[in-house]
Amino acid sequence: MISKPSIGFVSVVGAGPGDPELLTLKANRRLKTANLVLYDALVPPSIVAKATRAQCFCVGKRAGMKSVNQDTIHHLMVRGARQGKMVVRLKSGDPFVLGRGGEEVLALKDAGIPFEIIPGVTSAVAAPQAAGIPVTHRDVASAFAVVSGHAVDTFKPILETLSPNSMTIVVLMGLRNRSQIAAALLKNGWRRDTPVAIITAASRPDMEEWTGQLKTLGNAQLNSSDSPGSIVIGDVVDLAAHSIKKPDTFAISTVAFGH
Amino acid sequence: MISKPSIGFVSVVGAGPGDPELLTLKANRRLKTANLVLYDALVPPSIVAKATRAQCFCVGKRAGMKSVNQDTIHHLMVRGARQGKMVVRLKSGDPFVLGRGGEEVLALKDAGIPFEIIPGVTSAVAAPQAAGIPVTHRDVASAFAVVSGHAVDTFKPILETLSPNSMTIVVLMGLRNRSQIAAALLKNGWRRDTPVAIITAASRPDMEEWTGQLKTLGNAQLNSSDSPGSIVIGDVVDLAAHSIKKPDTFAISTVAFGH
Repeated sequence: MISKPSIGFVSVVGAGPGDPELLTLKANRRLKTANLVLYDALVPPSIVAKATRAQCFCVGKRAGMKSVNQDTIHHLMVRGARQGKMVVRLKSGDPFVLGRGGEEVLALKDAGIPFEIIPGVTSAVAAPQAAGIPVTHRDVASAFAVVSGHAVDTFKPILETLSPNSMTIVVLMGLRNRSQIAAALLKNGWRRDTPVAIITAASRPDMEEWTGQLKTLGNAQLNSSDSPGSIVIGDVVDLAAHSIKKPDTFAISTVAFGH
Repeated sequence: MISKPSIGFVSVVGAGPGDPELLTLKANRRLKTANLVLYDALVPPSIVAKATRAQCFCVGKRAGMKSVNQDTIHHLMVRGARQGKMVVRLKSGDPFVLGRGGEEVLALKDAGIPFEIIPGVTSAVAAPQAAGIPVTHRDVASAFAVVSGHAVDTFKPILETLSPNSMTIVVLMGLRNRSQIAAALLKNGWRRDTPVAIITAASRPDMEEWTGQLKTLGNAQLNSSDSPGSIVIGDVVDLAAHSIKKPDTFAISTVAFGH
């Protein structure tokens, strides 16, 4: 007689902005012991590769790509857990920032599957930071809003009511809609010369930056407009302080000097 | 003849919300090799203890405590680097979210000190998440604002213009001002029954949660009102899905079952 396997477990995990070194210790540990990894297309292969004991499946989603639908993702997580597996649902950035992680967790709850949520470094903060831009700064911005730029119908009413230049705005998944984003804010009275930055592939080797102003955002030329990107809008953009020297290079030279 | 030491390096590092397992791999690595660690009072001892080769100094700051002033922090970082040290400036959460990290980085830049910024898991997202609350959720909130609740003069104009119930609000450092926060939003037309949660000491063993509504926020009774806390305001609070089972307990039982 074959006994029913004991129920597994699902970890809904944030993979951070892209650099494998920005995984949390906990996320790293879960990947190493996972039996099944269901990852988003934005998670780089070098992070998925940490799951050496697991079967790994890409379940979408990238703008414009055909992807596994949300119900199927729920089904795959639940089925894996019911087969007794340690499942990692690996999501870019943080699972609860514009990533439908909330829906996935409710599906697990409804199915009675034991789960946990492991937060990750969100691109909403890490992307500006990779360009040296603080989302808040004393006397410049004491608040910031993170807005989905995916659908005009959702971001337009929000941007049209955000008090002009009252805070920093970070728009995620909005590169393709940058003209409408700029238009909504300008219509709402935001300064035409409000500094703006676009950061694509933050923290990755192919990271790209563009800086300009709200009035030029609509015409921003990007090499990689299909990449995931963040748009940062506000005076904090002018405070950008880039790292002066690459740390790993430095660490090597320090060792050479015997410190 | 004694030669001048080669210049050191400063890593401005986010320590995450409190759980040492939520440090990034990179932050963990920098702590292990640091010679000097300057940490905020909110960083738990178990994280500081990872810096086994370093001299570690607490440089503030906790509400109501006497703390080292900002210029002194800048001076200590710059001096350490000029002595050839690998300095870690260890900040709670993410260094660029309401943490004056931007000022510290500009001070390093002005002094010509090589530096890097290592993002951390921000409490703005991780605190709601520790209570199962997603800051965004399809059809409920497609944006969220993170606001400093430290000074009435700064948050009042922001809260009074945020379009009623248009997005989730996360207020950091605002527990002591919760009455004024509620008042500003109610005055601005936010629904009196808007769900609200308070999470203190998120991700730590002494974590505490309170849930209520905007009309009762001002009277919320907390055991630990001196702790760092986050206030989450919006309909997403009603979606809270708590983890069903503690992962580490589960991992042990799984091993026992031989999976």
